[in-house]
Amino acid sequence: MIQTTIIQLDNYGPWTVTPKPRLESSVLSFQSEAYAFLANAFAMYDALALDFRHDNFLVPSNGLTVEQHRRIQTAFNDRYAVSISMALSRSEDPYSAQVQATKLLHQTGGAQDANRLEKLVFDFPENSVEEGLLQIAHFDLNDITTTHTDSQSAYDVHQYILHSQDALTQKLLHLNGNKTMLFFIGGDNFVSVLNNKSRDFFMTVIQELAQEGYDFKVGVGTDYHSLPAMDKANHALEKIRNKECPDKVYMIK
Amino acid sequence: MIQTTIIQLDNYGPWTVTPKPRLESSVLSFQSEAYAFLANAFAMYDALALDFRHDNFLVPSNGLTVEQHRRIQTAFNDRYAVSISMALSRSEDPYSAQVQATKLLHQTGGAQDANRLEKLVFDFPENSVEEGLLQIAHFDLNDITTTHTDSQSAYDVHQYILHSQDALTQKLLHLNGNKTMLFFIGGDNFVSVLNNKSRDFFMTVIQELAQEGYDFKVGVGTDYHSLPAMDKANHALEKIRNKECPDKVYMIK
Amino acid sequence: MIQTTIIQLDNYGPWTVTPKPRLESSVLSFQSEAYAFLANAFAMYDALALDFRHDNFLVPSNGLTVEQHRRIQTAFNDRYAVSISMALSRSEDPYSAQVQATKLLHQTGGAQDANRLEKLVFDFPENSVEEGLLQIAHFDLNDITTTHTDSQSAYDVHQYILHSQDALTQKLLHLNGNKTMLFFIGGDNFVSVLNNKSRDFFMTVIQELAQEGYDFKVGVGTDYHSLPAMDKANHALEKIRNKECPDKVYMIK
Amino acid sequence: MIQTTIIQLDNYGPWTVTPKPRLESSVLSFQSEAYAFLANAFAMYDALALDFRHDNFLVPSNGLTVEQHRRIQTAFNDRYAVSISMALSRSEDPYSAQVQATKLLHQTGGAQDANRLEKLVFDFPENSVEEGLLQIAHFDLNDITTTHTDSQSAYDVHQYILHSQDALTQKLLHLNGNKTMLFFIGGDNFVSVLNNKSRDFFMTVIQELAQEGYDFKVGVGTDYHSLPAMDKANHALEKIRNKECPDKVYMIK
Repeated sequence: MIQTTIIQLDNYGPWTVTPKPRLESSVLSFQSEAYAFLANAFAMYDALALDFRHDNFLVPSNGLTVEQHRRIQTAFNDRYAVSISMALSRSEDPYSAQVQATKLLHQTGGAQDANRLEKLVFDFPENSVEEGLLQIAHFDLNDITTTHTDSQSAYDVHQYILHSQDALTQKLLHLNGNKTMLFFIGGDNFVSVLNNKSRDFFMTVIQELAQEGYDFKVGVGTDYHSLPAMDKANHALEKIRNKECPDKVYMIK
Repeated sequence: MIQTTIIQLDNYGPWTVTPKPRLESSVLSFQSEAYAFLANAFAMYDALALDFRHDNFLVPSNGLTVEQHRRIQTAFNDRYAVSISMALSRSEDPYSAQVQATKLLHQTGGAQDANRLEKLVFDFPENSVEEGLLQIAHFDLNDITTTHTDSQSAYDVHQYILHSQDALTQKLLHLNGNKTMLFFIGGDNFVSVLNNKSRDFFMTVIQELAQEGYDFKVGVGTDYHSLPAMDKANHALEKIRNKECPDKVYMIK
Repeated sequence: MIQTTIIQLDNYGPWTVTPKPRLESSVLSFQSEAYAFLANAFAMYDALALDFRHDNFLVPSNGLTVEQHRRIQTAFNDRYAVSISMALSRSEDPYSAQVQATKLLHQTGGAQDANRLEKLVFDFPENSVEEGLLQIAHFDLNDITTTHTDSQSAYDVHQYILHSQDALTQKLLHLNGNKTMLFFIGGDNFVSVLNNKSRDFFMTVIQELAQEGYDFKVGVGTDYHSLPAMDKANHALEKIRNKECPDKVYMIK
Repeated sequence: MIQTTIIQLDNYGPWTVTPKPRLESSVLSFQSEAYAFLANAFAMYDALALDFRHDNFLVPSNGLTVEQHRRIQTAFNDRYAVSISMALSRSEDPYSAQVQATKLLHQTGGAQDANRLEKLVFDFPENSVEEGLLQIAHFDLNDITTTHTDSQSAYDVHQYILHSQDALTQKLLHLNGNKTMLFFIGGDNFVSVLNNKSRDFFMTVIQELAQEGYDFKVGVGTDYHSLPAMDKANHALEKIRNKECPDKVYMIK
């Protein structure tokens, strides 16, 4: 089983334009620092906070208690100009867990509801701990620096990364029936949250994308917490980069 | 004329894995805070720093001097674990300016070249100031909160935003011959850097995307500096949100 | 028993002037953010990180494991330009614990020794947990806003705070034989780390300082971790501020 | 003439305990990051922001316009949970300038007045620029690392620094008639804001403190802006550290 936490900035859209539009640089720096705070705080409990849309965040939170989430939430809400709400759910796979978590959040009110503030909701016994294993896959593009970064314009490389992200995203969404989520984490790096995927699954992803012209490699880590799983994935990717393994898939348990 | 600055973290890929892969949460929080620093620093000179790929940044820098760039660069390099290089160029349009700026940067060395550190390059007289007007367009999706954020799962909304971004990106790249760049800035918000575009151009973008099923509106601001141009774009967008204008395009000079 | 952690920025003095003096604003912002990081990270484990000298920090770390310290240290060292070393020790009182912790740190090398990097030392079995109770006392000056802040110049108020700090520091160092440490935490607020102190002790401190012309009050919290002890101290101080108790000492266990 | 800016967090005390006492780690990290923001922002205009009391800041702001202050204030207030007010004044010396600036601020309301928010006041024509020279003196203690940091406990060194600060503060306040302000900036480093002081003045300070047992040296920089003046002071101090000058006073204009 996979536990997933969805975090949302409360009433954020209205805040950015109240009483009048705020300076965009202030909005952008606020949301960047808010994410940095969450990434650092979850790391203290061995979890990896992922950013999507800069006002929503997802944490593969296996092994984390509700109480640990509460501490992060309190610490955040006590110091930032905008508060956060959190929803936690567990399911057979990460995609389904975030579907349920988002539903829980919706039940407390909308993202622009001025009364939906500082919620913390979950659909399991508060003191239970999810002890299932999860996988983190770290994908990157081979030789992007030489083939693109150092030869094309910055925006063209950016475009290429977006196309690659789209191809990888679609492949992960549709391969093998169950939906797999992908997050961009900077440069040419993408992170996928999964469980129970075999080497064959990743080989198929890499090979089918190669046929579409996208040259990816992937390191995969398995652990009871998402940050050490990510760390294993990073080390696995280094194995491939350093040609210490024959293929473009390497897994560390 | 448009002046554009390309900023790149120096030798960043190697840093993230030296001497061994760093904790991913540390890498992610570092790059988020680095961007927040740049956004705040450029704001002091009325410029808007935009993030793409988290290790590359673009600033529409009309009105800014080389000396102002040097101060930001020195302040950054004196305190972060990773340094930045900067390249500035001017051209008839923002896309071409970043093409030239990237080329200038490439001439100093590659993104993973351990000797290409702390560069500051430009292809115009150091003391000249670009006094041309630029436009910033702020696009967002209508009613995304009710149609998506509050009814679909967080990842599905994320997918929808990515598809919308792709549609808008392609439209802006190909409409009217010259390439227009688009940047995601969080939520359902996108920023485009332009100059000399007419109301008709934006009406066409909005209408053609509506036919593809994407319901965008856009506020456009014109100024000698990018941050006040952005601010005008934000106020223009509020005009549309508040139904103070009949269309989904509003421009403030 | 009290466990205390001493944290020191490694080789920091030399870093600030290598290869030449860094921009002072960069040095000052770096050290402020480094402390903010530590305060937030220790909070995740219910501990209060205190700043003294901006390059040395003390944490009353009862209840925290060596492993938790290691995670904070790794997270810090993986992302900042300067690394930290940590030393942990336990003793009958906080002052003695920091004496021993500092000695442990000294044994690994000097503060400006380029080879003393990223140390983590402790003088107890790694897996043991200190389960003793500690006290945090939160002192502030009565009516400082009306008597000083709103009527004197900013620097004169600053001077008054320094004199008050000196008086309180000396009182706490010398009263009752064992040395009690005091930390300034902003405004007119001071924090003291103690254990086993009675209400009489605090009454004496407050009364003797009143005779010297310093009008302090103090809230005291007792807990197994320093952050909830601090929180209790804050609530105790509010009791006094709100005149919900007769004296200028209030304790919450 | 010296222009000085006093910055105060608005209604900060009440914020820290509303609706109940906030987590102390959140308060401490907020105020540290707020200062880091100000230090970085003022650096963009070549000014050095100094922290005293963590909720009040002083900037020797020669050469800075009211408009530049307004940008910093807007950027700050648009993104932090607590806003700032600013007061600017000019006088013959820095101490008098901050006396007048504080008075201006008092006239707009008290530090805990919920209606005194986001003020920006000044007592000179808005478009005038102060073009006088100022001095920054950077004092530090000789051999503190060997004589104290590496041999005494962290708290004892902290005590020694406080005593040294007190001695230096008193000397600067009372020598030569006019009051000179001193700020602690970390480690064993202190900064003084002055103008028109001769080498004799600093020699007297150093010599008289030596007689009291405090072994200081001082680098002094003179400039039209405070950050380059600080930078010159830092380089001057390096001259003394590297034994490139005979005395413990070195001045760079």
